[in-house]
Amino acid sequence: MLIIGEVINGSNKAVKEAVMKRNDEFIKELAHRQVQSGADYIDVNVGVGKGDREQEIADMQWAVLAIQEVVDKPLALDTTDPYVLEAGLKVHRGQAMINSVSAESERMDAFFTLAREFGAKAVALPITDKGIPATPREKLGVIEYLINQSLKNRVKPKELYFDPLALPVSVEADSGANVLQTLAMIKEIPEVKTTVGLSNISYGMPVRELLNQSFLLLAMQNLDAVILNPLDKSLRGALVAGAALLGRDRLCMDYIRAYRRGELS
Amino acid sequence: MLIIGEVINGSNKAVKEAVMKRNDEFIKELAHRQVQSGADYIDVNVGVGKGDREQEIADMQWAVLAIQEVVDKPLALDTTDPYVLEAGLKVHRGQAMINSVSAESERMDAFFTLAREFGAKAVALPITDKGIPATPREKLGVIEYLINQSLKNRVKPKELYFDPLALPVSVEADSGANVLQTLAMIKEIPEVKTTVGLSNISYGMPVRELLNQSFLLLAMQNLDAVILNPLDKSLRGALVAGAALLGRDRLCMDYIRAYRRGELS
Repeated sequence: MLIIGEVINGSNKAVKEAVMKRNDEFIKELAHRQVQSGADYIDVNVGVGKGDREQEIADMQWAVLAIQEVVDKPLALDTTDPYVLEAGLKVHRGQAMINSVSAESERMDAFFTLAREFGAKAVALPITDKGIPATPREKLGVIEYLINQSLKNRVKPKELYFDPLALPVSVEADSGANVLQTLAMIKEIPEVKTTVGLSNISYGMPVRELLNQSFLLLAMQNLDAVILNPLDKSLRGALVAGAALLGRDRLCMDYIRAYRRGELS
Repeated sequence: MLIIGEVINGSNKAVKEAVMKRNDEFIKELAHRQVQSGADYIDVNVGVGKGDREQEIADMQWAVLAIQEVVDKPLALDTTDPYVLEAGLKVHRGQAMINSVSAESERMDAFFTLAREFGAKAVALPITDKGIPATPREKLGVIEYLINQSLKNRVKPKELYFDPLALPVSVEADSGANVLQTLAMIKEIPEVKTTVGLSNISYGMPVRELLNQSFLLLAMQNLDAVILNPLDKSLRGALVAGAALLGRDRLCMDYIRAYRRGELS
């Protein structure tokens, strides 16, 4: 299972400040620590809410270049603006991930075009111009539409990681069950992959780390990737324990190693 | 999901001593605390390793009568000896659970006969005279055989809780995956139910509570019952978080209540 580290996000105050001040060291350190903690991809969201495209293009290129100076993992370029995305892809080394394509008319074609042009993987969301569909069955309809559109754009379905979109259980009581069922349905489709942005599920609830950790384990069998905070110790425990119990950790070596490093208690 | 509290077991030194000294208060307190912590059934294993059937019969009846003085939950009578089982069933009030029937020739017919006679539920194990089958497919063969035998004995399949038998991952590296796959396969069979004895999976490993908690969550969607220590706080957290995320806890009320009681942190 691929770990996409979510920490470098402009909605975080310290990250926002680092982006605005061009604080290379801060961003590099956050990327490095996530890789040390097991991240396979580093998400890069430099949106600081100013709506200045030229600035955001410059910020994205700055961040991609700075981070790739210190880590050899690929990045997940996280923006809804195709121009910002393209600018990031142009300076990215290796196979990037796009976070994210959706079925919204204003970004779908542009994002698939960029995915093909740069040979990128992409997180794909079942969102249309009408919003997020309510039921797993309706989400699957949009997912099938996106697969057809990806084929038309000559993007391979195996490069797509579908995220069912977890609403907070505090807002939508059956949100967890909805996401788990949607993940299981996506796994029935050949080639395409699954992911989920984990932390949204617990928004507005107490002891969020318990809910995040539990949701990760409930979903793990049907996940090819997950977007989370790799620096969260309770998630680290769930990841290594889950791998050991799913037979993905040969002789439980990673588990024992994490234990010896004091990461599990 | 039914919680079967496993704490009253003669292999535990303090319990063994309480059984041998007929310490009513100790046993009652252990039963009461498990019910307070959410147990739906209290497992009763009074085997203290002496091999004295008359004594064990007396111990079982003493324990059943003592526990049912203080809790109104049914008990899971845990013994491999049909005479001890029968003695316990005779004094048990309400619908008991038998823990456990297997396909071993020396106990299968006697246990099914008692299940029918006393209208009991039963934990059922895929064990034959040759031992525990290795693969999920082979386990399923024994489970199908047990279902046929239950029908011959006029025991209803819906009263059977099949436990795939979790070997420690420290002994059998793919044991977790094996159990999870077997549970999913059992859930495809109409009527019959699933359970698992949780704690064996982590035997011989460090930070056992992390593995037990993780295994519970990985399995939870396919479990109708689980045998565990309800007094373990990390399991309590996994149970309420899992219920909230599976849409089994309306408006997350149990979760919020557990949080307010300080049970989650």
